[in-house]
Amino acid sequence: MDTDLILFVSEETVWSYYKHEFDLSYQGKKILVWVGPSGEKIKDFFHFQSCIEFFLEKGIHRKAHLVAIGGGALSDFAGFVASTLLRGISWSVIPTTLLSMVDAAIGGKVAINTLAGKNLLGAFHLPLNLWLNLEFLKTLPLEEHQCGKGEILKYAFLDKEIFMTLKGKGDLSTLVPLCIKYKRELVEEDLKENGRRMFLNFGHTFGHAFEKIFMIGHGEAVILGIEFILVNFIKNEKLLKIFQELKETLGIPKNYQLSYYWPKIDKVAFLSYIFKDKKIKNLETMRLILLKDIGNPFVCEVTQTEISKQVMGFE
Amino acid sequence: MDTDLILFVSEETVWSYYKHEFDLSYQGKKILVWVGPSGEKIKDFFHFQSCIEFFLEKGIHRKAHLVAIGGGALSDFAGFVASTLLRGISWSVIPTTLLSMVDAAIGGKVAINTLAGKNLLGAFHLPLNLWLNLEFLKTLPLEEHQCGKGEILKYAFLDKEIFMTLKGKGDLSTLVPLCIKYKRELVEEDLKENGRRMFLNFGHTFGHAFEKIFMIGHGEAVILGIEFILVNFIKNEKLLKIFQELKETLGIPKNYQLSYYWPKIDKVAFLSYIFKDKKIKNLETMRLILLKDIGNPFVCEVTQTEISKQVMGFE
Repeated sequence: MDTDLILFVSEETVWSYYKHEFDLSYQGKKILVWVGPSGEKIKDFFHFQSCIEFFLEKGIHRKAHLVAIGGGALSDFAGFVASTLLRGISWSVIPTTLLSMVDAAIGGKVAINTLAGKNLLGAFHLPLNLWLNLEFLKTLPLEEHQCGKGEILKYAFLDKEIFMTLKGKGDLSTLVPLCIKYKRELVEEDLKENGRRMFLNFGHTFGHAFEKIFMIGHGEAVILGIEFILVNFIKNEKLLKIFQELKETLGIPKNYQLSYYWPKIDKVAFLSYIFKDKKIKNLETMRLILLKDIGNPFVCEVTQTEISKQVMGFE
Repeated sequence: MDTDLILFVSEETVWSYYKHEFDLSYQGKKILVWVGPSGEKIKDFFHFQSCIEFFLEKGIHRKAHLVAIGGGALSDFAGFVASTLLRGISWSVIPTTLLSMVDAAIGGKVAINTLAGKNLLGAFHLPLNLWLNLEFLKTLPLEEHQCGKGEILKYAFLDKEIFMTLKGKGDLSTLVPLCIKYKRELVEEDLKENGRRMFLNFGHTFGHAFEKIFMIGHGEAVILGIEFILVNFIKNEKLLKIFQELKETLGIPKNYQLSYYWPKIDKVAFLSYIFKDKKIKNLETMRLILLKDIGNPFVCEVTQTEISKQVMGFE
């Protein structure tokens, strides 16, 4: 790479496992390392400011290249740092979780969280490289595997090839590159999410609300989000049956389901969270991703009134 | 404009003078107003976070349009808010100071300050519109006029038409549109400042250091920065004479000069600030804008060693 300065941004857990694998005197380049907490905790104003001030205090320049090493939260965070530091420097990502390999590390949507919700402050900033190494998954906790599976489940609904591969019990070394390929194609066509990239939000509008309210993992929340939209908006028995079968194929635990969480929910808080979601097109309607069939998603404008009715009426 | 939601971002002084001029029920659109402190004070993490959280808490959406009303610091700040809010919304600017009319409000370079220096956290985010109204200058304090004049002086060195107009004692209603035109052309050709846009940094590398160290206005600091580079790097008697003549034509006070400030300077602090400046290309050389003649600037790579030598040796 044409730079003399590399900025590593990583997270505690990953860095404690893998720091000895990285050559910090690589080809005589200067390397600065900033390590933050693991998980969503890093995606706040405090850590954003800390990381920015750390690198600037060292005296960096515009040709510096940032390398994000970690899960999806870390790459969201580090990509936003890269997008704003000195008005934007280039970056690459080494995803270390299943979730980040199939989702967060692709497509350049970077962000941190705010009091009002997840990912509401961010940018579109494509990484130059995604270096994929499935070896990282060997040290990944089981619950983190489940998180990634939520997104793979999503892709299986959006893309027929991924669906068939999963149904044929293809393993991760086949599924992960297929998911990356599918997402990359949408992103190349529609970086700013004005068109088909929106399909990737399948299961996410309600998923984000579940994630916030129950403080559960993103992947688990997406599984609930998919079930919610299948039951309340798509209302297709065949697809619901497929949903259950794919969950089983992926080894997703039985209690990742609406009937476990919904009785505990504060519906008003749930709605209020959804109506602050940034996917809202204007103050009256929202865009939801629905399915005609497997591999056949579409964008649907739904009024807030209709959403309120479904949420309040769903038992 | 195709939106139902306008976000006004303004600063206390301007808003207290002009708030009654704005129709807050314009064509039935919803208008949210956030007002911060005047001047550079607004460009920090604290106000950035406050403004972001304020709008998000109200429940905004991606089609919201932000309108910045204020001076250069305000538009730098508000543009950065617009560039990151929901990963970027559109914005327009109503500049209220001479400095912002001829510089900050054009070109989409938006940023806030950090502990390590000015404008080190930001983005490139072009405003859709610049609405120019010279009436604002009637309530502008004298020292703010001087600030804008520093940038006009800069343009006069970069562009022959502006030089001739200024020399012919053209007034602001002629000079301001010429400055906007000149800067716009450079920006259209080179948004990310990889080429000719760099000319606009004439006088700024050292100017920013003066601004920080003496806590003086940006325009005044740029005047010192121009003098510094003329004396220490361009070393051209004719241009130095022109510098003094143009200062007089613009009515810039006599004490805006190096001989007043330089004896008081901490040279080591000055150098340390300059070497953290983001215009540094790599750890060993920096790019300075020099002049062959009026209207004929060029980019020059200068080693940090050479800069140190000039600074330490200059009395």
